[in-house]
Amino acid sequence: MGTMEKTDKVERWDIFEFSLTGPQPANPFKEVELQARFEHEKRTVAVKGFYDGDGVYRLRFMPDEEGPWRFSTRSNAKELDGRSGSFTCTPPGQDNHGPVRPDKTFHFSYADGTPFFVMGTNAWTYRPEEIRRKTLDSFSRHGFNKIRMLFFPKHYGDGENVDISYDPPVLPFRGEKNALDFSYFNVEYFQSFEKRVRELMELGIEADVILFHFYDFQHWGIDMGMSREDDLFFLAYLVARLGAYRNVWWSLANEFDLLVTDSGKLQVVLDRKDWEAAGRYLQENDPYDHPRSVHNFPFGVVFPDRDWLTHVSYQHPNTYSLLMELKGRYGKPVVNDEYQYEGNLPNDWASCTPELELTRHWMAVMAGGYASHGEAYRIDENSKDIFWSYGGELVGGSPRRLRFMKEILESCPFQEMEPDLMKSEGRDLFCLRRGSELYLYFKTPGFKDGGRLFIGPPEAVEGSYQVEVYDAWNCWLHRRLVVHSGMNALPVPPWAAIKVAWR
Amino acid sequence: MGTMEKTDKVERWDIFEFSLTGPQPANPFKEVELQARFEHEKRTVAVKGFYDGDGVYRLRFMPDEEGPWRFSTRSNAKELDGRSGSFTCTPPGQDNHGPVRPDKTFHFSYADGTPFFVMGTNAWTYRPEEIRRKTLDSFSRHGFNKIRMLFFPKHYGDGENVDISYDPPVLPFRGEKNALDFSYFNVEYFQSFEKRVRELMELGIEADVILFHFYDFQHWGIDMGMSREDDLFFLAYLVARLGAYRNVWWSLANEFDLLVTDSGKLQVVLDRKDWEAAGRYLQENDPYDHPRSVHNFPFGVVFPDRDWLTHVSYQHPNTYSLLMELKGRYGKPVVNDEYQYEGNLPNDWASCTPELELTRHWMAVMAGGYASHGEAYRIDENSKDIFWSYGGELVGGSPRRLRFMKEILESCPFQEMEPDLMKSEGRDLFCLRRGSELYLYFKTPGFKDGGRLFIGPPEAVEGSYQVEVYDAWNCWLHRRLVVHSGMNALPVPPWAAIKVAWR
Repeated sequence: MGTMEKTDKVERWDIFEFSLTGPQPANPFKEVELQARFEHEKRTVAVKGFYDGDGVYRLRFMPDEEGPWRFSTRSNAKELDGRSGSFTCTPPGQDNHGPVRPDKTFHFSYADGTPFFVMGTNAWTYRPEEIRRKTLDSFSRHGFNKIRMLFFPKHYGDGENVDISYDPPVLPFRGEKNALDFSYFNVEYFQSFEKRVRELMELGIEADVILFHFYDFQHWGIDMGMSREDDLFFLAYLVARLGAYRNVWWSLANEFDLLVTDSGKLQVVLDRKDWEAAGRYLQENDPYDHPRSVHNFPFGVVFPDRDWLTHVSYQHPNTYSLLMELKGRYGKPVVNDEYQYEGNLPNDWASCTPELELTRHWMAVMAGGYASHGEAYRIDENSKDIFWSYGGELVGGSPRRLRFMKEILESCPFQEMEPDLMKSEGRDLFCLRRGSELYLYFKTPGFKDGGRLFIGPPEAVEGSYQVEVYDAWNCWLHRRLVVHSGMNALPVPPWAAIKVAWR
Repeated sequence: MGTMEKTDKVERWDIFEFSLTGPQPANPFKEVELQARFEHEKRTVAVKGFYDGDGVYRLRFMPDEEGPWRFSTRSNAKELDGRSGSFTCTPPGQDNHGPVRPDKTFHFSYADGTPFFVMGTNAWTYRPEEIRRKTLDSFSRHGFNKIRMLFFPKHYGDGENVDISYDPPVLPFRGEKNALDFSYFNVEYFQSFEKRVRELMELGIEADVILFHFYDFQHWGIDMGMSREDDLFFLAYLVARLGAYRNVWWSLANEFDLLVTDSGKLQVVLDRKDWEAAGRYLQENDPYDHPRSVHNFPFGVVFPDRDWLTHVSYQHPNTYSLLMELKGRYGKPVVNDEYQYEGNLPNDWASCTPELELTRHWMAVMAGGYASHGEAYRIDENSKDIFWSYGGELVGGSPRRLRFMKEILESCPFQEMEPDLMKSEGRDLFCLRRGSELYLYFKTPGFKDGGRLFIGPPEAVEGSYQVEVYDAWNCWLHRRLVVHSGMNALPVPPWAAIKVAWR
């Protein structure tokens, strides 16, 4: 009944899975308890199993140390109790760096120490199966490595930005709209979501899973219909199913602080859910300690600091001064996960030009933080659907330029660089540096002395420095030169990234 | 010999002056010591006298308490020793609010408690007498209330921005260029400078007196030629002469950290002078504790915090993020005293458009700080002189708009307002607020949702608020309205200042 034969070797940070056949009572999710202890040398990790329909129960585990592991199960169901086995954890494959963790106060690294430069985007809830591959390819090609994705279905109450007839094939819970049984999961829904997480993992993309949102506008009665107990029951199931995927992040909510009342009015409500209980539950029960954040409404409140909060995920058009302020206030990595989307809709959240999108994203980086892009063009002129909800091919002007930005930043020791406000004009010219040996400037066309930039601290009268001037719009290396001492006015392109390294 | 008859009544914060005739040795500045003790009730203030040429010695004193004051002198010269007298200090006149002091951590107030909203400009060294009145009128008409002015003459080594033939009629010290006697003051030079300080006082304008600068490029050999002892001797004399003027501020240097070497190269040098000694001397010897600051080169270093530093005066195009960072670092008022000038010269410091000048100045204010404007247009097309060095009529596009800005800010409790970064996009939209009862927005035409602005926190579902929309470019009240609860998209002009007050 076990599948030990197939999985007796698992690479580090990959998924060991053990499936068993068990009882099928009225509600297996509620009535059957299954857990396992995984042991390696002196270490033990407790993991919950989960019911996957048709009498199948599964245990999933992500080993984080190489060598032999043993496990044994406990259950209130006889068939599932006292099962044991072992496997060997082998070195990770070439593209497997393990899960991402906060690192060096304001940054993230993979478990193997490789820096993780967050290059996020927002999109992709549930849309046509045939579009999915295209969407993933497009993300991957543009270097996006973190996707914020809603777990629960989204209803587009106003029908404004989506073909409203599009409903998910199944709902996450058994029952009818507004009469769902939150104690009985629809495994088909979870399997489908999980498949997407796996596809992202295979592409090296982090899945920032948004656990709660109220965007069903009481169409299905999910978010607001669930009690505190339902919330934790759901989280326990999700941790058991998804926790072993190394690319999972937990975003407790999208716009935790926003509510649309029956009359359609926006309202800021800080305790729509018991966020404390949810955050603490994950902190205490996720064996892998995946990153945890809470996302806010821009006219609301950035979620306050908590020990279970691993980083700040915020939504706001201010990617610079506010981002720096949040770094100072939380002492944690800060990701502006929604700074408004590139698009041409009339809505303020969906009407950034490529230029503004690029500027805001670069500014977040120049504040020593991270950000997530988004695209909101209609997929074609006859449709109400937009990329953000449907998927397909990214057509905006910012993605390839953001990929170029990421390449420049990845060629720098970004985790060791801090904003230098004395070298930043703060609106159209920004500077990051490591000590006095490496400077990175970003300049928009709006900078007054646009055609030239003074580089080189005047105090360094000795020594030469190497300068690389990148055209941040056309995405190429504009010029590379060596400059001998002193301050120099350097001609630069309208959109420029300039790397100055002392030798 | 005393002039007691004329000055037996002095209004509070005005100048009591007592002159005596005394000896005329080879160097009266060096050889004759004169001081006085001014007494009121249990308080005693020690003040130094000074030699003013032609055998005349003067004592000046600014009384800060109403009622009877007595004084007596001490001197090593018999004629000046043991003189005494008294006067009555009367209430201040209508426009006399006393000297300006740092107040409420980040602000300034007059001694009578009236808030002082710094609206600075930079200009005016020594230029034709007949132009002076015109310059002053122009400053006054545009609401400027603090002028940064060099004490020592400025030489324009490169002849680029001034008619180089223009030399001051006299030098501040006896002797020839590069062979000056720093122990012997040229009273004519001091008298002329002092007259300008008085004229400013009469117009209610603060004189931010710049004590040292190296811009004689070794033409006269003043700044770099003076020893530490010469510096303090000069400061003592200046304090004795000018200290009693209530509108005096001390700026230790312009660009303290910059030096131009013999070869014409810019160099950052932090200890060109013993700034510590100069700052501490003023702290300990200025009886009136006038504001003290040190101004920096934008590619250099903002002068580090010291207990004798009353506020931060810095030069930099970054008026927002850097200003906020400095507020946090120093916990003192911050004035961006040079954010580059409105002008059309090829130099980067003198080529701001009126739009950029206005934006930078507003940004400083929206950071909860202050700033100083400057103008650098050529006075006419045939001249090399610019307003900045010559004076005359301000012709730029920013002054009248800055005056309008000041009027708006003075109608707010600015000293109690702090930046609200959650309501600031940070590049083209900024917000200051007091609690949740008063919000002030500033918006440039660059703001994405330029035509409308969301105002009103969504949490405040009850209550109405009063909105005043100002056109910050055309300088008028665009619209006044009352809005009933909830968040609203308000149409606003391209350059807008919006005041939102809850009722």
